[in-house]
Amino acid sequence: MTFRKIPVAILGATGAVGQRFVHLLAHHPWFEIAALAASERSAGKPYAEACKWVIPGDPAPELQAQIVRDLTPDVPATLVFSALPANVAREVEADFAAAGYAVCSNASAYRYDPDVPLVIPELNADHLVLIGRQRRERGWSGFIVASPNCTTTGIAMTLKPLDAAFGVRKVVATTLQAISGAGYPGVASLDILGNVVPFIPGEEEKIQKETCQLLGSIAAGVRQDAEIVISAHANRVPVLDGHTICLSVGFEQVPAVAEAVAVLHAYQGPPDVQGLPSAPQHPVVVRSEPDRPQPRRDRDILDGMAVSVGRVRSCPLLTLRMVTVVHNTLRGAAGGAILNAELLVARGFVTA
Amino acid sequence: MTFRKIPVAILGATGAVGQRFVHLLAHHPWFEIAALAASERSAGKPYAEACKWVIPGDPAPELQAQIVRDLTPDVPATLVFSALPANVAREVEADFAAAGYAVCSNASAYRYDPDVPLVIPELNADHLVLIGRQRRERGWSGFIVASPNCTTTGIAMTLKPLDAAFGVRKVVATTLQAISGAGYPGVASLDILGNVVPFIPGEEEKIQKETCQLLGSIAAGVRQDAEIVISAHANRVPVLDGHTICLSVGFEQVPAVAEAVAVLHAYQGPPDVQGLPSAPQHPVVVRSEPDRPQPRRDRDILDGMAVSVGRVRSCPLLTLRMVTVVHNTLRGAAGGAILNAELLVARGFVTA
Amino acid sequence: MTFRKIPVAILGATGAVGQRFVHLLAHHPWFEIAALAASERSAGKPYAEACKWVIPGDPAPELQAQIVRDLTPDVPATLVFSALPANVAREVEADFAAAGYAVCSNASAYRYDPDVPLVIPELNADHLVLIGRQRRERGWSGFIVASPNCTTTGIAMTLKPLDAAFGVRKVVATTLQAISGAGYPGVASLDILGNVVPFIPGEEEKIQKETCQLLGSIAAGVRQDAEIVISAHANRVPVLDGHTICLSVGFEQVPAVAEAVAVLHAYQGPPDVQGLPSAPQHPVVVRSEPDRPQPRRDRDILDGMAVSVGRVRSCPLLTLRMVTVVHNTLRGAAGGAILNAELLVARGFVTA
Amino acid sequence: MTFRKIPVAILGATGAVGQRFVHLLAHHPWFEIAALAASERSAGKPYAEACKWVIPGDPAPELQAQIVRDLTPDVPATLVFSALPANVAREVEADFAAAGYAVCSNASAYRYDPDVPLVIPELNADHLVLIGRQRRERGWSGFIVASPNCTTTGIAMTLKPLDAAFGVRKVVATTLQAISGAGYPGVASLDILGNVVPFIPGEEEKIQKETCQLLGSIAAGVRQDAEIVISAHANRVPVLDGHTICLSVGFEQVPAVAEAVAVLHAYQGPPDVQGLPSAPQHPVVVRSEPDRPQPRRDRDILDGMAVSVGRVRSCPLLTLRMVTVVHNTLRGAAGGAILNAELLVARGFVTA
Repeated sequence: MTFRKIPVAILGATGAVGQRFVHLLAHHPWFEIAALAASERSAGKPYAEACKWVIPGDPAPELQAQIVRDLTPDVPATLVFSALPANVAREVEADFAAAGYAVCSNASAYRYDPDVPLVIPELNADHLVLIGRQRRERGWSGFIVASPNCTTTGIAMTLKPLDAAFGVRKVVATTLQAISGAGYPGVASLDILGNVVPFIPGEEEKIQKETCQLLGSIAAGVRQDAEIVISAHANRVPVLDGHTICLSVGFEQVPAVAEAVAVLHAYQGPPDVQGLPSAPQHPVVVRSEPDRPQPRRDRDILDGMAVSVGRVRSCPLLTLRMVTVVHNTLRGAAGGAILNAELLVARGFVTA
Repeated sequence: MTFRKIPVAILGATGAVGQRFVHLLAHHPWFEIAALAASERSAGKPYAEACKWVIPGDPAPELQAQIVRDLTPDVPATLVFSALPANVAREVEADFAAAGYAVCSNASAYRYDPDVPLVIPELNADHLVLIGRQRRERGWSGFIVASPNCTTTGIAMTLKPLDAAFGVRKVVATTLQAISGAGYPGVASLDILGNVVPFIPGEEEKIQKETCQLLGSIAAGVRQDAEIVISAHANRVPVLDGHTICLSVGFEQVPAVAEAVAVLHAYQGPPDVQGLPSAPQHPVVVRSEPDRPQPRRDRDILDGMAVSVGRVRSCPLLTLRMVTVVHNTLRGAAGGAILNAELLVARGFVTA
Repeated sequence: MTFRKIPVAILGATGAVGQRFVHLLAHHPWFEIAALAASERSAGKPYAEACKWVIPGDPAPELQAQIVRDLTPDVPATLVFSALPANVAREVEADFAAAGYAVCSNASAYRYDPDVPLVIPELNADHLVLIGRQRRERGWSGFIVASPNCTTTGIAMTLKPLDAAFGVRKVVATTLQAISGAGYPGVASLDILGNVVPFIPGEEEKIQKETCQLLGSIAAGVRQDAEIVISAHANRVPVLDGHTICLSVGFEQVPAVAEAVAVLHAYQGPPDVQGLPSAPQHPVVVRSEPDRPQPRRDRDILDGMAVSVGRVRSCPLLTLRMVTVVHNTLRGAAGGAILNAELLVARGFVTA
Repeated sequence: MTFRKIPVAILGATGAVGQRFVHLLAHHPWFEIAALAASERSAGKPYAEACKWVIPGDPAPELQAQIVRDLTPDVPATLVFSALPANVAREVEADFAAAGYAVCSNASAYRYDPDVPLVIPELNADHLVLIGRQRRERGWSGFIVASPNCTTTGIAMTLKPLDAAFGVRKVVATTLQAISGAGYPGVASLDILGNVVPFIPGEEEKIQKETCQLLGSIAAGVRQDAEIVISAHANRVPVLDGHTICLSVGFEQVPAVAEAVAVLHAYQGPPDVQGLPSAPQHPVVVRSEPDRPQPRRDRDILDGMAVSVGRVRSCPLLTLRMVTVVHNTLRGAAGGAILNAELLVARGFVTA
């Protein structure tokens, strides 16, 4: 039996997240890169020339010579990954969806639309039912599925198992975010070297909003956001990759620390998600050392697709405190979107 | 009229905080360094040889040749500053206090004893009344006054004005602490370069305990700790100096953001504290930029003796969120202890 | 007797070096800031709004409200400091010189013109005689005096004393340069955090060329460049301020290490330079510790106006090896240009 | 046919380099870890408890429970890797060699003995002939083979191809070395964060001496060191892994830049070395970008076993300048020693 890989395109292929897509898809078992697309400035140039490669290693040799296309929706692909900036994404992603493409977007442009599923496969694969309504109401032959903000990904993956078991009601989330979350050139070294910047525009609002969406449920085809009160404090720190999040969590039913740890450790997504090529063996890895997780030492665990949780302990104010590390450009960006695409294939939304 | 400076000694003069004392006291208007003392390992050597100087600049030339004394309580001084490690401090500080010295300690050894004032002059100068009881009950001719933990200093200086005006009830404090807080050699570069370590032994407990002490009141000669529920998350980040603290605060009476800002800005300690040589013009400097305070850019404000507070905004869970930066080795260590010593002179507990 | 300060303007006042000028001139004994000028984008706005302040502290309150002017040569000043980028400087500095202003430039635009003195006062104050020829030939009522490249400043200040005593013939200079040398936003944090970038455009050529100019002599009103063969390797490292330079130096007459150290230590510029307000007590500070100078610990010595030299030792290939640290935005930029301006006043080229 | 892996032991298994050995040997095709040994302090404890793991990931689960042995030469292995500190290595390595073990040492203890081969397989595999003399003269049934200093590895791998083609005569080597080269805890963060330390004890001497050894030849069973004059400047920089070295090189026969690049690119070790499991496809990877190699982006090329060379350009003083990056704990330490062990197997010095 011959297996034909699904041709995919990367929109915004020259940026920092676009490069992560290129890197992760180079040897993907189901997908093959059929097109690299970017803004006018890059279009028409060989990829190696259009792109200042900022992640380790080099792009695969066969991609270096590939000519970057513009963002017109006529790429030789079935599915497109969007690493576009939000302002560009709004129009371009709609064009691709209207033209029949399945769009797996890492941008925030459509995240908050009620008919666009915002998905982390292990958490809320069932939100994909929104696709039907999306296509119907918008008259698109394709559709958009969104991945959440990188920090929110870490928070939601930590809270979901606990919410399912004990009911999460209140959260204080203080983040220590890596510079790669701001893209390239992104954060000026004069701003962050030996420093902390206690502000990331829009981040706290995204955390507060998207966490409730991801932990929400679908009733009668409509998404009901979870009713969790979240207070977020977002900080940039001089770390290359890996966001660290300190959480104080209040529960409806108060678990012992050991119960919470057990629930985190045991968590698994639906069976068909567990078998996806990019799904980690465990979505949540629990560390028992007193000083872990740490971004530099734990971000790459299970290929950067699991979150690491540690220091689970009681909280004098709410119920429990804990620390989470998530790889912001792998699970929190390109890797998360690819896992979404795999889910779309597994559930028949995309076919070769 | 001739003014005679008060001779002081520095215990633990060769360590990182000891060096800050040496630096700050080199040109002090009231105090002059009469003795440098340290452990057996350093005693008997010239200071420049005993001490690996790790802060900018050099020790004053006249001090470089001074022979380091051991920790016997027979120094030619009236007042001693202790930068000793906690385990050594318990015995040595008692010896000095028993021998008649006024001890301004930066160590945690006596901080939690009910008869030892834990003081930030602008906040709780009235706690000095505990000295009488301390001398009486212990039979010491001298006494010990303690300075709080560096991070707690930043938190308490931020909360005190707000507590006085609106009543602080609940606090979540997440810290991003500089490496200098761990002394020298302290944090290994392999642990912290491009990384976050989400654990500092004992720190969260100190924050939770000392904040309530500092904001407590004296009734009938006994300290009543404030009843504030505090949940602390302590992190080490790759910053040289300056601790950053993200605060969510719940109040008894809910202030508007502008009211809280006005209260922080207007705060002043007692009149006699305002005139002390090391007292900053304002204990709290409020920043209005969206991305301040930052440790590298704000730690040195008003000679590192003020805290900088910014991003005062509402909190979805408690009442207000804000960010504080405190210079951990100046206001949070040596500078704070020197200000305490000045207060002791101003209030007649120490005389030339 | 009343002393009237000389009114000065800063061209390019909103950039990183411009901010250093603003900071250093805030309390200058001879100069007062009469105008802040910058490109069209900033002109017309209050300085605090036009400028993202990136150095520690804040601009003086009275300057924050000052309206930024454009770069037209009609400022109410006698002398102007230029912190303009090279491409803008070529035209604007000429306009100001033609209009009668004394221009102390930190830009490279005119550095290599044979009639423009490139000056470090302690080294080659006599090069100012070129001003006469410059005005004559160009028909300018004002003139331009240039400051050298920041790294070259450190190299030339180290080599000059040795050249005067022993004759420098060959140099290998490998630099480890701070990020502030690239201005703001300058170096992306994704490029430099935990990394080295072994390339700085144009830097090696500047070092090779300007060092020979600075150590050159004036004969019959013409500058004769020194004949020193210099091989430079320029690197960017994750250091905030302070360039470190490793030097292998070959001499005509071979000195012992102690002789070289003595010559470096004893070096002084001409007597009238020694008395200038911004002149350091010693242009060269020699460190004897085995691991100094270091940029973070030594850059601020003597207000950042001296270079620190250490590890003077023999070289297996040439004669001696040594390490120099220079504060790149103080002595190597704004401070150096202000010292040049003071020299112009002291020698009568500029009068109040 | 069944293939039996060769049992190996790691001496000094708990240190930073020891951990690299553990990591690299976990899935080695020829070797299996039969014993972990370390000093008295660690002996008798499970590895996970004895060892503070400082490199990314975790030790393999089956090793975590393994009990650490002491350094007595009775391990169930044929070959031992030594990651011992130099002072301990002198005695312990001799004990193991005398007891019949093949010792692949990363320590400097025996590097300079004339009968101990100091080997980089692609460069001087022929130096292994010294083993015969070593066993004979010392009466050992086993033997020691040494790996060079990490920085020297990068320099020698860059110079060897050029030396073979054009004759290297003079070298100035300025290094920018990663913190991991100093082991754990190693460099204090207070010393290196945002700083450069221009001194590494003993490093410059090692570079100067070992480079000549590695590029030396064997004549009549005796090693003749190469006659290259080397001037080294060693610096520590805030980089995690990967040493950067700036080289000025003088040749006997002057090559064009393109010729030198071609020679570097084409270089290969002996055929039997090319086939070793840990041998990189190319020992030297030449980068053509103007700003490469960089330690963070290039250290991991070809599994960290190749050096990356770039910026090959003419030198005003000698012949050519260039920049090399070598992964100091992979090719420059554990990986290099393992490649030596593979060579010993391939050439019959060690058999299963």
